[in-house]
Amino acid sequence: MALPPLSSTRCLLPLSLGLLQAALLLFFALCVTYDEHSASPTNPEDTERAAKQLHSTFPFFQDIQVMLVVGLGMLLAFLPRYGFSALTHNFLLLNVSTQWALVLQGLLHRLQHGKALLGLHSMLSAEFAAVTVLISAGAVLGRTSPCQLLAMALCEVPIYVASEWLIVTRLGVLDVGGTITIHIFACYFGLGVSKALFGNAKPTVHPKETPTPRSDLLALLGALILWVFWPSFVAVLCQPGDVQHRAILHTLLALSAGAVTTVLMSILLESDGKLSAAHLQNGSLAGGVAIGVVADMHITPAAALALGSLSSLLCILGFQFLTPLLAKKLKLQDHCGIHNLHGLPGVLGAVASIVAASVAPRDGSGAGGHRQAWWQAAGLAVALGGSLLAGMLVGAALRLPCLAPPPEPLCFEDALYFKFKERVENPPLPGSSTEGAALAVRERV
Amino acid sequence: MALPPLSSTRCLLPLSLGLLQAALLLFFALCVTYDEHSASPTNPEDTERAAKQLHSTFPFFQDIQVMLVVGLGMLLAFLPRYGFSALTHNFLLLNVSTQWALVLQGLLHRLQHGKALLGLHSMLSAEFAAVTVLISAGAVLGRTSPCQLLAMALCEVPIYVASEWLIVTRLGVLDVGGTITIHIFACYFGLGVSKALFGNAKPTVHPKETPTPRSDLLALLGALILWVFWPSFVAVLCQPGDVQHRAILHTLLALSAGAVTTVLMSILLESDGKLSAAHLQNGSLAGGVAIGVVADMHITPAAALALGSLSSLLCILGFQFLTPLLAKKLKLQDHCGIHNLHGLPGVLGAVASIVAASVAPRDGSGAGGHRQAWWQAAGLAVALGGSLLAGMLVGAALRLPCLAPPPEPLCFEDALYFKFKERVENPPLPGSSTEGAALAVRERV
Amino acid sequence: MALPPLSSTRCLLPLSLGLLQAALLLFFALCVTYDEHSASPTNPEDTERAAKQLHSTFPFFQDIQVMLVVGLGMLLAFLPRYGFSALTHNFLLLNVSTQWALVLQGLLHRLQHGKALLGLHSMLSAEFAAVTVLISAGAVLGRTSPCQLLAMALCEVPIYVASEWLIVTRLGVLDVGGTITIHIFACYFGLGVSKALFGNAKPTVHPKETPTPRSDLLALLGALILWVFWPSFVAVLCQPGDVQHRAILHTLLALSAGAVTTVLMSILLESDGKLSAAHLQNGSLAGGVAIGVVADMHITPAAALALGSLSSLLCILGFQFLTPLLAKKLKLQDHCGIHNLHGLPGVLGAVASIVAASVAPRDGSGAGGHRQAWWQAAGLAVALGGSLLAGMLVGAALRLPCLAPPPEPLCFEDALYFKFKERVENPPLPGSSTEGAALAVRERV
Repeated sequence: MALPPLSSTRCLLPLSLGLLQAALLLFFALCVTYDEHSASPTNPEDTERAAKQLHSTFPFFQDIQVMLVVGLGMLLAFLPRYGFSALTHNFLLLNVSTQWALVLQGLLHRLQHGKALLGLHSMLSAEFAAVTVLISAGAVLGRTSPCQLLAMALCEVPIYVASEWLIVTRLGVLDVGGTITIHIFACYFGLGVSKALFGNAKPTVHPKETPTPRSDLLALLGALILWVFWPSFVAVLCQPGDVQHRAILHTLLALSAGAVTTVLMSILLESDGKLSAAHLQNGSLAGGVAIGVVADMHITPAAALALGSLSSLLCILGFQFLTPLLAKKLKLQDHCGIHNLHGLPGVLGAVASIVAASVAPRDGSGAGGHRQAWWQAAGLAVALGGSLLAGMLVGAALRLPCLAPPPEPLCFEDALYFKFKERVENPPLPGSSTEGAALAVRERV
Repeated sequence: MALPPLSSTRCLLPLSLGLLQAALLLFFALCVTYDEHSASPTNPEDTERAAKQLHSTFPFFQDIQVMLVVGLGMLLAFLPRYGFSALTHNFLLLNVSTQWALVLQGLLHRLQHGKALLGLHSMLSAEFAAVTVLISAGAVLGRTSPCQLLAMALCEVPIYVASEWLIVTRLGVLDVGGTITIHIFACYFGLGVSKALFGNAKPTVHPKETPTPRSDLLALLGALILWVFWPSFVAVLCQPGDVQHRAILHTLLALSAGAVTTVLMSILLESDGKLSAAHLQNGSLAGGVAIGVVADMHITPAAALALGSLSSLLCILGFQFLTPLLAKKLKLQDHCGIHNLHGLPGVLGAVASIVAASVAPRDGSGAGGHRQAWWQAAGLAVALGGSLLAGMLVGAALRLPCLAPPPEPLCFEDALYFKFKERVENPPLPGSSTEGAALAVRERV
Repeated sequence: MALPPLSSTRCLLPLSLGLLQAALLLFFALCVTYDEHSASPTNPEDTERAAKQLHSTFPFFQDIQVMLVVGLGMLLAFLPRYGFSALTHNFLLLNVSTQWALVLQGLLHRLQHGKALLGLHSMLSAEFAAVTVLISAGAVLGRTSPCQLLAMALCEVPIYVASEWLIVTRLGVLDVGGTITIHIFACYFGLGVSKALFGNAKPTVHPKETPTPRSDLLALLGALILWVFWPSFVAVLCQPGDVQHRAILHTLLALSAGAVTTVLMSILLESDGKLSAAHLQNGSLAGGVAIGVVADMHITPAAALALGSLSSLLCILGFQFLTPLLAKKLKLQDHCGIHNLHGLPGVLGAVASIVAASVAPRDGSGAGGHRQAWWQAAGLAVALGGSLLAGMLVGAALRLPCLAPPPEPLCFEDALYFKFKERVENPPLPGSSTEGAALAVRERV
């Protein structure tokens, strides 16, 4: 077996990153306008309005940045010899995809409204596009090269932009927390990629894939960071005021119920009543995925609690029964279990939104009525079907040898992508023999 | 010696968690109303007021969530083989106690004002109740089963709700940062539980109890996270405006003086002038505990500095002299040293509040006068005495064998509660012999 | 070789910390006034204004605290046996320097305006002074004692206060993100200290200096935390409204472009196309350093992108070529590479500000015109030259033997400053032989 064509990585990756930077620069130089609130910058009322707008969004924005860069990166670092790659690929994909989405969404906005706007709001929309890439990458993490992930990002972002435009703008689907447009889309896209990329190879557990207690602890911390900031993710785009307040409360309740249900279920299902780290890391977040689409609807707190519990239940049942089944029957690889965290709870949330819309009062908010329920169902179908299809096409393209897939023995291995410094051999330092030894004996355990 | 009755864990824990979820759902379905600010949702002024209220609380709320879930969890993970359990039990207790407090506080509010309200403010009050459980658990961490901790939480929350109602509502004690109602209450409750639970067994140091440099580093990071966000905890419930501003400043000053004093004292007290990790992890936070009760009073910045320094001094003297003394004389176990971090600085803060109240000018704010000083003293006495008594009663109940206390050799051991995946034996992969070995030799040090 | 005079550490360090605390207390007791917004605390309009002011600054302030305490501390913990010292020295220096700056800036303000004010704004200014100490310490980290670092802090803060007054107040240099006044000043001050302190000793790589994958991962997490919160650091002191909005956007763009460029360059420059952890940890932040000085000027988004990319390019070229050259030719030690992260991108940003000022329209904002360009250039010269000179003087003073420099074999070693608990030998616990062994075999890998 030959080593992976690193020369290809070395040329292709910098080249495509360089081209993307150039395209972005060109686009920004030519056709972007600031999204500002002041007719005149000297008008104090305009300034105050702009300041209020900024201060009501920026803390949410920062929370989301922590989630994506730190929380998600740590969660993916559950692979013990792949922590660097997980953190770095996540960080690189986030930046590349956000930039690429800024260009595409800017062009789309220009087509529709005559100009491309740059503001905290458009940065947020672009980051949401990037989130889909980060989620999809979870299905193939560790067995794909940076070139393959980059190619996936470059394909997935335009498909997301089109899908989001179709679902939200054309169909009028209500989805404030991105359950349908982000989680379901990203999950089935990633599964499609995984299926087409790895074909009918029998999924095997790689020896480096098993988490150690230490890497699992890091991942658990990442999950807790995601858990803490999840309400910001769901509620950032809500209407300010009571609607946003309610969305935050619903998310808090769903997450809390989900956390308790996760522990309950894990103890019931695992042999000898012990907890599984993977259940904790994923199950406690499932409530947040499901609640997104109904967070600002007229649901009750009890419904939020029930939805959170049900999502975690589904997530853990998925890990315990569905993932092995899919691996066996469909030969489907899903390394991070994104189907259990994003797919199943996402579909549950979408179904809940259909129910919530159909029983909602037909008030002026436009959210109620059977018609809206149909749109929600249509959105679910489009997101699920479209992303699966698109993912399989993209996955087939990722088999190109020039994208340098890592050879099986070097999967899940940082050393393939990172240069670690060689430790200098301990030279006999003058005078260090006694005191140095006495003080340095304390071995790190 | 028999293994712990895991079957009991397996039945009792899911059962009680399930019942709690059901009770919560029922309560929310039957008698909770949103705490909203709009008479009519279409009134733009109402919406603006609701938005302002939310944006002035939510960043504080998120900071507190980070403290409780991430910071405190990491601080408790100083036990090298118990990091998972510390993080997870902390997370589970936080959620269960918050939910239980939502029910109880909701019922109490309903009794008093006719309806139970759900809002960010009531979530905060419930989280404060949960904080007491998290603090108390520190006294018995590692030698108690999840069942015991859960039982403790279910008992402690109603006692806290009653105690807080008595101290704040009835006695009119001023305690914006929860020094008396949260820290003192939780500390002496926990010590009471520990005393009654472990009885007159001579406290021994378990071999797995000693932190390693690595687990100590994680705990230090946790302490720093708590340190950073502490001002939000103290000031979140202050009156907005200058009062809140002052409370934040006082907390910052107390924490900063405390941090410097901690280093100073640790160097002076430790043999050979080295720093102790436990001193750093606890001493730098002591100022925050003490300042809570006086943060919004008419104290001076110099007083805040002095209070911060004194608290850290007390905390470190406590670790150095009082903890060994209590262990020897009273056979009292206090695994995380909560008496030094919460008890001593809490009492110091309460005394400071008595002084501050008695010298305060009798202005319209109602905070001044000798009468208030008496109330502060009464609050301190009630919190301290009541919690100690209640803790001992609860601790005696926790000795029930069905709560599955862990056997001594398996204390401080994650493997008792967590199922870690078995690492797949490294199978000889085709072609991996040379290149794989060459790339994978880099051993993680 | 004799052991370091720990007795000196033990006396000198507590003594100087104690004196500083006393001075601070005295200063606060005698001449500090709260920086408040209410003429009368009962006026609701005044209260509302004060509340708005607080809520528009506090989230930024907390972000910066996370950066300095957690993010920077973790970034410095890349030294595998020096993580405790890095975190703790960083934390101690931050507190000491902030307190010292509060005194000095308070006195300066008193001289100028008749009274010293205490508020979130003055805390921020003092923290910015402390940042310079934290940056400078990076040049000599691991080979200096706490006494030396403390002495450096006590010298550097007044020099910074004078330099910042000269550059910003007298010369009118525009530098909202502190590129010139903080980053350039701190970098060349630190390099001056390093040169004078270590003299012409040939820089050698200490065996304990080489990061392990684990310590590098922690440092990468620290860098990501800094990356996430950097916009708050740059924009906190901006005028509210559109100007602040634009400063945040420019910083986000520069950081994002810098992150991608870092990966691109690291792959191109490292042999065999792998990424270097040090490049990632520093290069992705370089854009934030450079953008600070122009963030609120009339630059375009494209310029922000270009500046971010160029900074990261310079930073990585610096690591690859300039640092070895400086070590060889000038015998200059720079352990954390602060010249590459703060020096080169800082100078680039300063040059960009000269260009931006000279091409700016001469509108009413006062930022435009050739005259401003000259001031920017003068500011750069003063910051760079003055700090280098001052640093060399301070560095010479740090050679005093009473400051207890660590002996070479014990450099980069936590055990010199920290007392780690001895692990209790595993006593044969009754009954633990079978079940205990069975459950505890799982070795932490």
